[in-house]
Amino acid sequence: MKKLINKPEYVVEDMIAGMVAAHPEYLRKLDAGNILVRKNAPIKGKVALVSGGGSGHEPSHAGYLGKGMLDGAVAGAVFTSPTPDQVYEAIKAVDSGEGVLLVIKNYTGDVMNFDMAKEMAEMEEIKVESVIVNDDVAVENSTYTAGRRGIAGTVFVHKIAGAKAEKGASLKEVKAVAEKVIDNVRSMGMALSSCIVPAAGKANFSLGEDEVEIGMGIHGEPGTHRETIKTADEITEHLVNRILEDMKPEEGSEVAVMVNGLSGTPLMELYIVNKKVNEILTSKGIKVYKTFVGEFMTSLEMAGCSVSILKLDDELKELLDAPADTPALKLL
Amino acid sequence: MKKLINKPEYVVEDMIAGMVAAHPEYLRKLDAGNILVRKNAPIKGKVALVSGGGSGHEPSHAGYLGKGMLDGAVAGAVFTSPTPDQVYEAIKAVDSGEGVLLVIKNYTGDVMNFDMAKEMAEMEEIKVESVIVNDDVAVENSTYTAGRRGIAGTVFVHKIAGAKAEKGASLKEVKAVAEKVIDNVRSMGMALSSCIVPAAGKANFSLGEDEVEIGMGIHGEPGTHRETIKTADEITEHLVNRILEDMKPEEGSEVAVMVNGLSGTPLMELYIVNKKVNEILTSKGIKVYKTFVGEFMTSLEMAGCSVSILKLDDELKELLDAPADTPALKLL
Repeated sequence: MKKLINKPEYVVEDMIAGMVAAHPEYLRKLDAGNILVRKNAPIKGKVALVSGGGSGHEPSHAGYLGKGMLDGAVAGAVFTSPTPDQVYEAIKAVDSGEGVLLVIKNYTGDVMNFDMAKEMAEMEEIKVESVIVNDDVAVENSTYTAGRRGIAGTVFVHKIAGAKAEKGASLKEVKAVAEKVIDNVRSMGMALSSCIVPAAGKANFSLGEDEVEIGMGIHGEPGTHRETIKTADEITEHLVNRILEDMKPEEGSEVAVMVNGLSGTPLMELYIVNKKVNEILTSKGIKVYKTFVGEFMTSLEMAGCSVSILKLDDELKELLDAPADTPALKLL
Repeated sequence: MKKLINKPEYVVEDMIAGMVAAHPEYLRKLDAGNILVRKNAPIKGKVALVSGGGSGHEPSHAGYLGKGMLDGAVAGAVFTSPTPDQVYEAIKAVDSGEGVLLVIKNYTGDVMNFDMAKEMAEMEEIKVESVIVNDDVAVENSTYTAGRRGIAGTVFVHKIAGAKAEKGASLKEVKAVAEKVIDNVRSMGMALSSCIVPAAGKANFSLGEDEVEIGMGIHGEPGTHRETIKTADEITEHLVNRILEDMKPEEGSEVAVMVNGLSGTPLMELYIVNKKVNEILTSKGIKVYKTFVGEFMTSLEMAGCSVSILKLDDELKELLDAPADTPALKLL
């Protein structure tokens, strides 16, 4: 295991200390464990958003703390759900009285622990609602999941529901738009290499020298199949077609695209993937309204990418375009 | 070689097509080769900045096209200088009559070809000045370099000289502040793995399973030494101490920090490095004014990082804080 870390058991603490040192204008750490909140939280009159999950997906989720996105981000151990206590502390710290929306990726541990935290907070008279993101069309049910997994499409939920909250919408309205995003976003990924959980010290699976896995999850969960690597165009075509088969957008639809790097893949290759995504959509009469290319939801050092497509309407376009100011995503 | 590409000989063209598809609001491609310019260039009354170099360092340089940074970015083949013709075309396309500053990283091919382009443009009565960035303190002279290499500190030159130009400063003033940044920025990097130039198809060097190279260049040029991997704290201490020995900042100095990923290293590890950078500087009475953690100047899929430190004065602080709006760096 060759990593820039100190002790494997302190990677999350060290990372969070490094985030606080880098971004004091955006975020602060709560005393109670690995919880980061927006610097000026709770924000009076505003519904708060809390997300989180296992660490190892940075910049998700603490990189999205700030204006127009999240108020709280809870970091579990690497690829491990945070505890209910942690989520509960985050809820308490960010609630201004207007209520809190939990954005949960669909993994069994996360769903259970965020739900328990919701109950704990409700006993203290805090209004809490939750949504579960399940954008990954690759497989139904998986290693840690009943139903579909939540992956990079989650960042669209943060962006759009965060913008709605920033405009002063009610908890009910913020939840409704988060659900609209979830209904309209689909993703699928692929991996060129595995990754090493620091505490394990070795890769949890391995791929042959010319082998890739299609539909792989962001914790290395199995995908649909393995195959000998093809061209970027062929791989992209497979991912986009699977998404479109599920989404069934009409000709003339407008979409947002996210080409997300899992971490080990250079930006050059993500742009090469985006070229083909754009060509396919354009050829089908689907209009690309906005494109994001970069690392938004990673898997430690795994090489590979995911493609997310979000079908837009006027409300979603306006909220996607609204200003955001966070360490990892800024829109002017 | 496992990469998300089509044909190795088209990686730059495909990438540029993917960038244009992703960022039409920021940039456009010239007909003449792999040259991207700010969408609305030339901008009346504004000095223009042109940078570039071999591809494989994305988001450098085209990711910095936009308000408050670059007007032109010229992309050579992977790790290969662009031609004088390409640079000349970029200069012609972005000059508004106020002149053009070339920001060149100190590699022999780049320096030669940008200089030839400067002469070609001067024959057409375009005012051109140039600066050469040589921030890497690791080694004097190197595989492709006489003197020190230019690495991630170059992004501070783009940011600050770009902000000066945006404010309407003259070519002489923009050049002067670029030189001030170059005088005050120092960097040093290290690699945990090699990278594969697509056209070569195999790694140009290899490291042992527990081996890292300290002071490695962004094209895999040799560093100061190889060693068995140490903790992130120890590695960071070595890099920062080498920078500070060269820079000799007084106690009470203010600096900007950039912890730059070479591409294969997860953001988690970059933040772990930043924790120690911040601790060292703080312990020496040096104030960290602003921190950037991410991938700014990469080396294909190489794992590793560099640390850059820029000593600030009031002018540099103001220009560093000025708004920028580019695909890869936004400041509100």
